[in-house]
This record gives sequence, structure tokens and C-alpha cells, in this order.
Amino acid sequence: MTRRGLFITFEGTEGVGKSTQLRTAAQALEAEGIECVVTREPGGTPMAEAIRKLLLAPRDEPVNDITELLLMFAARAQHLHTRILPELDAGRWVLCDRFTDATFAYQGGGRGVAEERIALLENLVQGEVRPDQVILLDAPVETGMTRARHRGELDRFEQEAVAFFERIRATYLRRADADPDRYQVIDAARALETVTHDVAVRIRGLARSGVKSAC
Amino acid sequence: MTRRGLFITFEGTEGVGKSTQLRTAAQALEAEGIECVVTREPGGTPMAEAIRKLLLAPRDEPVNDITELLLMFAARAQHLHTRILPELDAGRWVLCDRFTDATFAYQGGGRGVAEERIALLENLVQGEVRPDQVILLDAPVETGMTRARHRGELDRFEQEAVAFFERIRATYLRRADADPDRYQVIDAARALETVTHDVAVRIRGLARSGVKSAC
Repeated sequence: MTRRGLFITFEGTEGVGKSTQLRTAAQALEAEGIECVVTREPGGTPMAEAIRKLLLAPRDEPVNDITELLLMFAARAQHLHTRILPELDAGRWVLCDRFTDATFAYQGGGRGVAEERIALLENLVQGEVRPDQVILLDAPVETGMTRARHRGELDRFEQEAVAFFERIRATYLRRADADPDRYQVIDAARALETVTHDVAVRIRGLARSGVKSAC
Repeated sequence: MTRRGLFITFEGTEGVGKSTQLRTAAQALEAEGIECVVTREPGGTPMAEAIRKLLLAPRDEPVNDITELLLMFAARAQHLHTRILPELDAGRWVLCDRFTDATFAYQGGGRGVAEERIALLENLVQGEVRPDQVILLDAPVETGMTRARHRGELDRFEQEAVAFFERIRATYLRRADADPDRYQVIDAARALETVTHDVAVRIRGLARSGVKSAC
């Protein structure tokens, strides 16, 4: 099925500047006269945001890896089917802070959940739907961690050790490498204005190319 | 793997008396000198109870069927791996108010989610683990609904129409019919003392038979 809007996701480890670059992208699209919505995962609907809260809250009870994985996909099913797909069908572009690449990176690379289990849930929840473009903001883990720490208290994920984030970064880069048409890797360790410029150029390029969604 | 305790679940539509009969079963086991824990699904740990709250709260947002299914199994993964299996391994019997049969009945029979999708998640979350015995309390839907209504405000499931519960009851009976060694169907439309007597006799029978868990 071809949808009218494009589905673009922003990925990367903690503190690489996803929120800032989502705003950059939204502004670039507006300047091109393209309507878009900015959303995030886990979350994006009231119910999915409630699942996000459950997932991120630091807690005494050890969280089973499969529990975490299923909650991520529960939030995703709600977000995708009740919000993202209707927006794309209505012709709006959807810019999303994280999507299934984050699950492969965090639960797969980070926690060690087998990739096939994640792929099985990806197919169950998404069918054939995949992001049309993935903007991967890449920076050394320490650079991002330092920025994330400056933002204040850490959530359950941000409390993990550096090795956890190294595995996440490596998974992201491996996935991007395997599908270079769909992934844009942007070096996010550079000065903010350089990164912003790069993101704006790529988004304008997509807006002007007339590329159609494959979702 | 053989575990030391037995895993017994109680199933049935609304108002068939599961809570009452769980207490009957716990008392019967105690009288036989067998330690047991009584728990419920979705729930049974603080995190799984938080997921239960999300699932049962009446809400304006339409809940996607796959979201509901994944939340059920997220709660189950947490409950099974952090509570039920450790209890069984410690030699205690576990009496659980609903388990995966309820998912086949409610999300499968009730909502129309394909059985293979549920089976796929059952395998992902449980591996080979299945309840050793399922006590299915069966009564005509109207009988149970009248009792449930007397209990007060209805949750998101109890608000469904009678036809929804008819499909659930039929699914339960079909599953019991296909595996009569593992399912005990008890006519719950009879007088309470008769049902209680039946449940106590069956539980005592299990306690005295020396049957081993196949979990």
C-alpha cells in the first residue's frame, strides 16, 4: 500500500540531539509547505504514553526482558495504528523520535534479546510497514552521556553502564550499514549548527525529490 | 523440566465464582498440608498489576486489539518469570485466577484475534510452560453477568455485549474438550455449596495423587 505522507524516524543513543533535530526537520518541511506531525516512541497517544511511563519509571522489581520488549511493542501497536498510519493516509508526514530500530538497538543489542524475537514482533505489529527514512544521529557514547547527564535525573535506561550504550550504538550502525538507502547516518559529535544544517539539507532533499512512501 | 509445585489455573467468564473457588482450593490444599500461593492475571507483581490497571481502565481512546494482546503477555511474562516459576521451584503450588486460556478466550474468541498470533506469543513468553490443571468454571453467560453486575461498576471487559461473552464461553469449552486430562469443567450454575464441594474434591484428588508438574 502506498500512503500519501512520508514516515521518518530519528534514532541514536542518549544525548545525540534527537529532539533538537526533530524540530529542525519540522521547520524545514514547513518551509517547503509540507504538513507534518512530530511524535515519539514509546508514546504518541494517551494510552501509549501511559505505557511509556510504566517502562521508564525506575523500580525495585527487576523487569523481565520479554516484559520490556512486549510493552515497547504494545505502545507501538497503539501509536502506529491509531495515530501514525491515519496521519500518513491524510497526507501529513510523520517525524518520530525513535521507532523499531531503537528496539533492535536497546532490547536487542543492549539487553541481548535475540534479534529473531524482535523481528517476529515487528512483523506481528507492523506487517509490512517500515520507516521510509531513518535519520541516525551518531556520536561517541561518552559525548552523548555527558549531554544527557546535564539534563538532570536519569531514567531506567539512562542509568545503564557505558558498555550497554556501546552495544546499542554498534547495533544502530550495523543496521544503517545494511540498508544505506533507507538510513542517513549523521555525525552528531560536530558543532550543533553543522548537524542542524546537515539535517535540514537532507529533509529538504526528501521534500523536493517527490519520493513516495512505501509504508 | 520438572518443578516441585503444581500450577493450577481457574478460568471462566464473568461472575462464575472464580475468586470464591480459588479460596476453596487454597483451603483444601492447606488441609492436605500443601503450601500454596493464590495469584491472578493480569497482575501478580507490582509491575504486572500496573499493566492490569492500564488494561482494565475504561478509556475514550479505542484500544487496538494487538496492543491489548501484547499488554496481556507483557504482564504474563513478568508474573511467570519473576513470581510463578520461582514459587513452583520452591515447592509451593500456584493457584492463578486466569492465565493464557483467558487470552485465547477473550482476545481470540471474544475480539477475533487469530489463534496463531496468540500461540506465537504464548511460545515466546512461556516456552514449554503450561498450567498442569485448568479448572474451568462454566455457567450460562446471563447467569454470570447478573452476578457480575451485582458487584458494582463494570470494567472495560465487563462492558462488552452478551455475544462477546458467548464467544468466550464457547472458546473455553472447545479448549477443554480438546484436552480433557488437563481441563476440569465444573458446572458453576449449580448451588454454591455443590460447586465448592466439587472443586474441593478435585483439588484433594490432585493433592493425594502425587502427580508431578510438567511445567
